[in-house]
Amino acid sequence: MSDFDLAEHPHRRYNPLTGEWVLVSPHRAKRPWQGQQEEQSCEERPAYDPVCYLCPTNTRANGEQNPDYESTYVFDNDFGALQADAPEGAYVVSNLIRAESERGICRVICFSPRHDLTLADMEVQDIRKVVDLWQQEYAGLGSRDFINYVQIFENKGSIMGCSNPHPHGQIWAQSTVPVEPAKETKQQSLYFEQHQRSLLADYLALELESRERVVAENGHFVALVPFWAVWPFETIVISKRHFQHIGQMTEEEKGDFSQIIKSVTAAYDRVFGISFPYSSGIHQSPTDGQEYPGWHFHMHFYPPLLRSATVKKFMVGYEMMGNPQRDITPEAAADMLRSLVR
Amino acid sequence: MSDFDLAEHPHRRYNPLTGEWVLVSPHRAKRPWQGQQEEQSCEERPAYDPVCYLCPTNTRANGEQNPDYESTYVFDNDFGALQADAPEGAYVVSNLIRAESERGICRVICFSPRHDLTLADMEVQDIRKVVDLWQQEYAGLGSRDFINYVQIFENKGSIMGCSNPHPHGQIWAQSTVPVEPAKETKQQSLYFEQHQRSLLADYLALELESRERVVAENGHFVALVPFWAVWPFETIVISKRHFQHIGQMTEEEKGDFSQIIKSVTAAYDRVFGISFPYSSGIHQSPTDGQEYPGWHFHMHFYPPLLRSATVKKFMVGYEMMGNPQRDITPEAAADMLRSLVR
Ligand SMILES: O=P(O)(O)O[C@H]1O[C@H](CO)[C@@H](O)[C@H](O)[C@H]1O
Ligand SMILES: O=P(O)(O)O[C@H]1O[C@H](CO)[C@@H](O)[C@H](O)[C@H]1O
Repeated sequence: MSDFDLAEHPHRRYNPLTGEWVLVSPHRAKRPWQGQQEEQSCEERPAYDPVCYLCPTNTRANGEQNPDYESTYVFDNDFGALQADAPEGAYVVSNLIRAESERGICRVICFSPRHDLTLADMEVQDIRKVVDLWQQEYAGLGSRDFINYVQIFENKGSIMGCSNPHPHGQIWAQSTVPVEPAKETKQQSLYFEQHQRSLLADYLALELESRERVVAENGHFVALVPFWAVWPFETIVISKRHFQHIGQMTEEEKGDFSQIIKSVTAAYDRVFGISFPYSSGIHQSPTDGQEYPGWHFHMHFYPPLLRSATVKKFMVGYEMMGNPQRDITPEAAADMLRSLVR
Repeated sequence: MSDFDLAEHPHRRYNPLTGEWVLVSPHRAKRPWQGQQEEQSCEERPAYDPVCYLCPTNTRANGEQNPDYESTYVFDNDFGALQADAPEGAYVVSNLIRAESERGICRVICFSPRHDLTLADMEVQDIRKVVDLWQQEYAGLGSRDFINYVQIFENKGSIMGCSNPHPHGQIWAQSTVPVEPAKETKQQSLYFEQHQRSLLADYLALELESRERVVAENGHFVALVPFWAVWPFETIVISKRHFQHIGQMTEEEKGDFSQIIKSVTAAYDRVFGISFPYSSGIHQSPTDGQEYPGWHFHMHFYPPLLRSATVKKFMVGYEMMGNPQRDITPEAAADMLRSLVR
C-alpha cells in the first residue's frame, strides 16, 4: 500500500482530451502571497452608457451605428484578427521557416442591450437567446467554403483582456483548425476508433458515478471540474447526449444549456463575492465537411482567480517553459463551487 | 504571383521546435486599446532591504538565516511545488482518470546580494557567476537518480507573478519531462534522425544569412526573435555550437552566454524605458541518462508587454481555446530590439 494521497502530495494528472499533463501541488496552497494584486473594480455600471460602443443606438469606431437591439446583436469585429479577403499564399524558406496565409471572419456578439449585466445576472430565457444566436452563427459561418473551424468564446473582466464591460462574446472563424481543438480532435478520434464510444461520454459516466467533481447537473448537461483542470476554478460543461456541434442541439437541450450556463456563472460570482472573471469557449467539430463521430460538444470555463478577488494564478516561468501547474486540487474547487450553486 | 505579404496579412507560422502554429495578425497592431493597464511601479529600491527574505543576513519564512553572500546564493524553496520525499504511487480509475505521484526539488537562486539590481543592470562578470551556478545546479540536481529533467527559469516583474523584486530565479527539477521540453525533445529528435543535423543549428544558419530577425550576436551565441514567436518581444538565445546542455558549456562559451544575456535584457529595458518584465527559461536535454544527440541548448525570453509600459498582450479566450495569436510581426519586433542593443 502506498501513502500517496491526491489531496496531499505533488502529482501529475493526465488530460485525455489533449494528451497532455498538469502538475498538481496541493500542499502549496498554504504559501503566503506577497506578489501582485489585481485592482478590484467596484464601479456601478449604468444600464445604458452613452460612450460604450456596444450599447444600442451608439456609434462604433468605424462610424456605423448600432441598432436599438432588444436581446442580442452580432456584427463583424471592426478590428478583427482575421480577414475574409486576405490573399492566399505561403512564405516558405525551408521546412524550418514556413508561413501560410489564413482567412477568417471575426464577429462580436452583444449578449444583452443592458450595459450593466453579465451572463451570470441574465435570466435563463435571455441567455437562451445567446445560445440561439451561437447556433445560427455556427451554421452560417460554418457553411462558408473557406471556414473550417468556428471558435465561440468570451473574455469576461479586464483581467482577461476584455476592453469593454458591456456583456459580449466573440467568434473567430477560420480556414484551419487551431492548435487546441486539433489536439482534441486527435484524442477523441483515437478513442472513438478504439472503443466505438465517445471519450467524454465515458468520462462523464465515471464522474456521475463518483460525483466528486460534479458542480451542477440538469436533464441534458453536467458541469464539473475536470480531473485534469489547470485553472483553479476551471469547469467543463458536457452534454449528456453525444453530439458533435451546437447545430445538432435540440430545443430542449438549448434550454438546459442556457440554464447550466446560468448556474455555473452565478456560482462563480459567489466564490469571492465579485463578478468573477474568466475566459470561456465552446469546443465542437470542425466545419470542413468531414465526419467527426468522436467529437463530443463541450464548453470550457477558465477563470484566473486563485485565493481572493485580487490574487490570481500566474501561468508564468515554469508553466510557460515546462508544464501547467496548479495548487488547490480540482476536488477542493468542485466542493466549493457545488456548495455555491443555487 | 500572390499578393500575400507577411507584414500585412493574417497568417499562420509553423514552430518546428514544438510542431505547433501561431496566428499572426499584423494589421491588428492599429486597434485602439481601452482595456486594462498595468500599474507601473516607479519605486526606487534600496541596495539592501531589511524585510526582503532574499537579502543577505535576513531571516526567511522557515526561520533560516541567509548567509552574508557576496555574489550568488542558492537554497531549497521554502514553498516548493515539488518535494523530494513525495511517496511514490498512482491513482488510476480508468485510462480517462489517471494521476501519478511526482518527485522533485525546487530551488531559488539569488542572482546578486544587491536588492536593487536586475540581470539587465548587473556587470557581465557578475552574470557569469549566475551562469556558473546554473551549470553546477544542472549537474548536481541532474545526477540525482530521481531527477530526469531540470527546468531553470526566471519570473521578472510583478506582472509575471514575481512576488519579490530581489533579483532571483528558480529551478524546478523533477522525475518526468514536462510538456514543453517533451515537445521539443520529440521535434529535435525527429529532425536529427532525418537529417543527422541539429534543427536549431540549421535554423540559426538561415537566420544568420538573412539577419532579418537577429537581435544580437557574439562569438558563441545569437539572440533573435524566432520566426514563430508568440509573445510580442519574444527572443531565443541559441548557441552556435551544437551541444545538449549547460554542463557541456566551455569557459569561453559561459563568458559569451553571460554577455548576450546582458545585451538582451538591457535592450528590453530600453523598449519602453522601464525595467522590462519577462519569464525566461533554459531548455536543454533531460537528465535521465539517455543520449539526446538532437537536443540543442537554448534559452527563451517571453515578455508580456505589447504597446507600452502598461499595456500587455493578453493570452486569453481565443488563445486559450484556439491558438496563440500575436499582432506585431516578429520582424518588426526584431528591428526595434536590434536598434536598442548597445
Ligand atoms: O514560486 P513563486 O515565484 O512564488 O511563484 C511564481 O512562479 C511559479 C512558477 O512559474 C508559478 O507557479 C506561480 O504561479 C508564480 O506566482
Ligand atoms: O478582441 P479584444 O477583446 O479586443 O481582445 C482580447 O481578446 C483577444 C482574443 O482572445 C485577444 O487576442 C486580445 O489579446 C484580448 O485583449
